Amino acid sequence: MSSQLAPLRVTYSFPVSAGEDAAQRARELAREQTVEVPEGCFPDAFEGTVVATVHDVATVAPDRATAVVDYSQALVGGTAPQLLNVLLGNVSMFDGVRVEAVDWPDWIRDFLPGPRFGVAGLRSLVGVEDRPLIATSVKPVGFDTDELARRCREFVLGGMDVLKDDHSLADQSWAPFADRTARCQAAVDETNASAGSSALYVPHLSGPFEELPRRLDGLRGLGCKAVMVHPAILGWDVVRWLAENSGMAVFTHPTFSGTLWATRETGMAPRVALGDLQRLLGADAVVYPNAAGRFPITADDVRAVHTSLTKPLLDARPAFPMLGGGIDAERIGEWARRFGPDTIFLVGSSLYAQGDLRAAAKKLREAVEKS
Amino acid sequence: MSSQLAPLRVTYSFPVSAGEDAAQRARELAREQTVEVPEGCFPDAFEGTVVATVHDVATVAPDRATAVVDYSQALVGGTAPQLLNVLLGNVSMFDGVRVEAVDWPDWIRDFLPGPRFGVAGLRSLVGVEDRPLIATSVKPVGFDTDELARRCREFVLGGMDVLKDDHSLADQSWAPFADRTARCQAAVDETNASAGSSALYVPHLSGPFEELPRRLDGLRGLGCKAVMVHPAILGWDVVRWLAENSGMAVFTHPTFSGTLWATRETGMAPRVALGDLQRLLGADAVVYPNAAGRFPITADDVRAVHTSLTKPLLDARPAFPMLGGGIDAERIGEWARRFGPDTIFLVGSSLYAQGDLRAAAKKLREAVEKS
Repeated sequence: MSSQLAPLRVTYSFPVSAGEDAAQRARELAREQTVEVPEGCFPDAFEGTVVATVHDVATVAPDRATAVVDYSQALVGGTAPQLLNVLLGNVSMFDGVRVEAVDWPDWIRDFLPGPRFGVAGLRSLVGVEDRPLIATSVKPVGFDTDELARRCREFVLGGMDVLKDDHSLADQSWAPFADRTARCQAAVDETNASAGSSALYVPHLSGPFEELPRRLDGLRGLGCKAVMVHPAILGWDVVRWLAENSGMAVFTHPTFSGTLWATRETGMAPRVALGDLQRLLGADAVVYPNAAGRFPITADDVRAVHTSLTKPLLDARPAFPMLGGGIDAERIGEWARRFGPDTIFLVGSSLYAQGDLRAAAKKLREAVEKS
Repeated sequence: MSSQLAPLRVTYSFPVSAGEDAAQRARELAREQTVEVPEGCFPDAFEGTVVATVHDVATVAPDRATAVVDYSQALVGGTAPQLLNVLLGNVSMFDGVRVEAVDWPDWIRDFLPGPRFGVAGLRSLVGVEDRPLIATSVKPVGFDTDELARRCREFVLGGMDVLKDDHSLADQSWAPFADRTARCQAAVDETNASAGSSALYVPHLSGPFEELPRRLDGLRGLGCKAVMVHPAILGWDVVRWLAENSGMAVFTHPTFSGTLWATRETGMAPRVALGDLQRLLGADAVVYPNAAGRFPITADDVRAVHTSLTKPLLDARPAFPMLGGGIDAERIGEWARRFGPDTIFLVGSSLYAQGDLRAAAKKLREAVEKS
């Protein structure tokens, strides 16, 4: 009764203490993620169809092992929430279990749409063929709508490709969601029209669960062509919902997600959590920290996420890696050479610190065009 | 321009290396969580209203410090997603930052409803006045609807108070969501009617974002009085939405949430993530692991979460701590004495291992009544 479809193949690493049987630990993990009852409490026929299959158990350090666990299509069942539950559900509460890599079977594409725009689609929206894109955050929270809209105009006039709301702009009374997004979109549209540019404004969509569809309709009514969400708070399937239903380019922000991927021995490797998963869920651009900025991600992990977002992956379109978290405007040429054209550089603080936002953006644009 | 309202007061712990200024690190954290731009890039008037205020910085270990950070009501702005972003947004990507405790101001209750049923309301639903409740999981995934419904009947006849779907029962073809929940609810209703019992069936609600409201309507149509969700996957505000809109008792499950609270030096202390937060969001019962089971939570943390769910907290109703993750049926008396009557004991594997589910449940019920 074994399934004819390829499995979802997940490589986990996990701790083993002296004398512990790594293969036994791996089988416990596989049961925890599936039947959650002891051996003997389910029919033999469940093995390999319901209960995951464990293979290639290897000791990789004196106190750490890896194992490959195969889950059936029937178990994953066709939704993103159950996929996440299978990848790292209850074992997220074990000590030091980490999803290191996933071999994605074709059937994942039956329910995960991947990017609707992707790199090529986003390039069309902003009218930039072959250089890296430059982006900034509209911030800080605390300013009123007039000032945020003014900042949008300055950035567009300076030649910025993408202007995203800061993820801390929610619905505060200083600049309420509806008013802020309307004024910022209008400021970008008007400035684009007068300057002949195609800058893309990306409003931050957040709020109560039941209001998200209505707020999305509001953004659609404003003519917004893109939207940003934080899936670790709003729910991971919100990305897929937007990719399938909004008609807009979808940007994801990593706030609140750090405990999932930044602790090195738990959760998921960054290339899975920030890379494969976000792309398959449908993110067209994925905001995440560059190394050498404010966040302690390694250069290797930054590269691995970049690769996950842009490499061949089933038939999903490539997504734009959007590097932020302390990108120094002065070093943009170096980063552009390192990461290549299919990258969005999200530069905030080092522009704001220059005071004249239009001039700062202009300098950044010139530097990236020269790179 | 300082706010008249009490702040959201958050105690963080964070690493400090030799020679590093802990107070400076704390101020960086406070800026990261608010304006996200360097000093000099916002008006002085933002200090204390937009930018959080840092105080009581203390060194608690050679390499670790704590600080108290006050956020204004104006910043948090009245929604659960922005609250979570303020508590642990971008700093979740820093090394080793942890929310240790939160002093909740009264205004949190303006948008977080707390439990609608709580301990007293759940007691009314199951008709049990003053002993601990006993619960089990309907599982394993892989069985068809007939077998799952049969298990429901056996457990009700054995005297189980609460029967929740296993969180891995999603919408698999073995027992699709609509069919499974209808048949299990009917099995529980019919058995209650014939046995004169009041067992509560708690279906697991999951699925695509846009289908959750329709699936909830389906459960309402079946006469379900309770529902379980996994907020770390579906989105945290789903709990609040259900508490305010479903009319059902809300159970939360911790799958996928472990990286947030189980790693000891990152994320949130269990008493915040599993305790205060779940309760304020509106969980009537919170599933989490007991110590001495399959999960490495400490006895102190189990107790701290229990206290957070049941202590006076603004004017929110107490929520039921629902201890699971390897509760041994043989030790139920000991656990009941330790945790007292306002506890739900979720016993799964050690019942299933006994084979005769009705007899196993009956024995458990007798043991808890004697305790």
